[in-house]
Amino acid sequence: MGGDHGPSVVIPAVAAALDGVPGAVRFLLHGDEGAIAAELAKRPDLAARSELRHAERVVAMDEKPAQALRRGKGTSMWNAVEAVRDGAARAALSAGNTGALMAISKLILRMSSELERPALVASLPTPRGFTTFLDVGANVDCDAERLVDFAVMGEAFHRAARGVPRPSVGLLNVGSEEMKGHEEVREANRRLREGGYVPNYQGFVEGDDLTGGIVDVVVTDGFTGNVALKAMEGAARFITQELRNALTGDFRSAMGAAVARPALRRFRDRLSPPPAAPLLGLKGMVLKCHGGAGVPEYAHAVRVAADLARSDFAGEIDRNMRRRPSAVVETGAGAAEGAIE
Amino acid sequence: MGGDHGPSVVIPAVAAALDGVPGAVRFLLHGDEGAIAAELAKRPDLAARSELRHAERVVAMDEKPAQALRRGKGTSMWNAVEAVRDGAARAALSAGNTGALMAISKLILRMSSELERPALVASLPTPRGFTTFLDVGANVDCDAERLVDFAVMGEAFHRAARGVPRPSVGLLNVGSEEMKGHEEVREANRRLREGGYVPNYQGFVEGDDLTGGIVDVVVTDGFTGNVALKAMEGAARFITQELRNALTGDFRSAMGAAVARPALRRFRDRLSPPPAAPLLGLKGMVLKCHGGAGVPEYAHAVRVAADLARSDFAGEIDRNMRRRPSAVVETGAGAAEGAIE
Repeated sequence: MGGDHGPSVVIPAVAAALDGVPGAVRFLLHGDEGAIAAELAKRPDLAARSELRHAERVVAMDEKPAQALRRGKGTSMWNAVEAVRDGAARAALSAGNTGALMAISKLILRMSSELERPALVASLPTPRGFTTFLDVGANVDCDAERLVDFAVMGEAFHRAARGVPRPSVGLLNVGSEEMKGHEEVREANRRLREGGYVPNYQGFVEGDDLTGGIVDVVVTDGFTGNVALKAMEGAARFITQELRNALTGDFRSAMGAAVARPALRRFRDRLSPPPAAPLLGLKGMVLKCHGGAGVPEYAHAVRVAADLARSDFAGEIDRNMRRRPSAVVETGAGAAEGAIE
Repeated sequence: MGGDHGPSVVIPAVAAALDGVPGAVRFLLHGDEGAIAAELAKRPDLAARSELRHAERVVAMDEKPAQALRRGKGTSMWNAVEAVRDGAARAALSAGNTGALMAISKLILRMSSELERPALVASLPTPRGFTTFLDVGANVDCDAERLVDFAVMGEAFHRAARGVPRPSVGLLNVGSEEMKGHEEVREANRRLREGGYVPNYQGFVEGDDLTGGIVDVVVTDGFTGNVALKAMEGAARFITQELRNALTGDFRSAMGAAVARPALRRFRDRLSPPPAAPLLGLKGMVLKCHGGAGVPEYAHAVRVAADLARSDFAGEIDRNMRRRPSAVVETGAGAAEGAIE
């Protein structure tokens, strides 16, 4: 029911994703029975692999998180997350209200270990694969400890989701020298260097390293991460629009573009970032899809969700957090003194 | 003498810029006489329009600002900024140590009105022209008052440099709703809405508006601004590299690319951001060029500097700051009570 379009986009998108996911993957569709059934009737292949679970209500896109917590029970979003807790689903995907999804997921699934709030993670294309980038908007105010949490979560996510055994981790800053940046980022750097939180910590990285493939995981606060992610998306949109203008400007350019069209299409596909951002740190898997996603983007998000659902990244994060050096380390005592809890 | 290459890039670059600047523009070249004279000998056209001013020493690229202040007197950087103060030059351009350039410029030229530190401004291409974006790295910690200063400076700069009579100003945030973002950005939003600091304030904008052309001026702290700028530069580099790969992948694509080459070249030129960032807020004009700039980039920076030198943006900022509602406003008293100082 979520996002700007609801079932009229979600159902066709899940149907479109069917041939990209293994046959054993099945779907629980939470929401208004009438609206969903009408869309399902057009796609018997999807109907055969899904189950409709009626919900009376929805969380509105402009509802505040606290409000969504109070009156969220029985909404399609609530039920989808509950299905993960109850083991009926491996992952929940929503294009609805981000703040509400975070709050409801945190309440129902709870956080791994001593984590406080979920982080939103994005995957950025690089010449060599993907950069795992977090937090991209869930935590606007972040102290050093929170940044260390993101490093631990991001590292576990990258290992589970991308199969890299020892992901390298960098901390986003305005320069690579130790004295650069504000107090929180310098303190987080110190802790990550000395505390053994992630085995392959590489120190500071800069904005252009995000798509450079220098490190596997880049950590920052949710304010900077959100701005940087959207800035890159905006730049990519601007650049491809400029390219289109350039290649249709005159007959000669248009001819060249027509000949090169398959390459230009591969180019465009390569650039599209995955439209689903997992919420990290929960004891269960929840993914957020862009509210404005159309059928192709939402279908892509469904494939990403089906993929990640087999990766156990949530379990990996939980194990990483339990292995995490305890808070004692942060006051200066010996490192790697074993797990908390 | 500054930058990664010194006179071997700077002198050929100034020579290359000659035909892009009016004949009346002349150059003072500060630095090692021998090194500069050797380069100048190859370019008599430049020699005829420039004057060599010998400096015994240079500011090293890794020198700390405080150090540069103590021992900077007599360096090429120091002398170039002094020439602006003494009226011998309209603008100083350096590819040297950014922190040192800021500190030396602030000491020699002083700040306009009650401004505390210079801000670095970038110009980003948009479908309709350019976005003025600041601060892109000079001030890592910014409170609400500093953000308001940036709005006032950026607005004056855009008017002077781009000839837009009433530039629109936006404040960078993670969403456009009033309750979004951290405390400093919400407080700055309140002051800009109520204080009358800039006549055409448009509220919050997001990362993708930077290249969207929604507003003329986008304001943020130096940490976020630096990361966002570099993230966009990195994305642009990645995308054009991917495009090159796509268009040389097979014979058909390469054919198409060859036919469309002039369009692709115009496209690339359109994307290149101006490589010179003015330092705003000084009583005088200083521009910073990328340390790694090659001849074409540095030549571009010289043209930008020559252009801006005729715009009087520093005077415009000073007048804007003097018109600025006084500090009294911030405690709630009546607005627009006249200038400070």
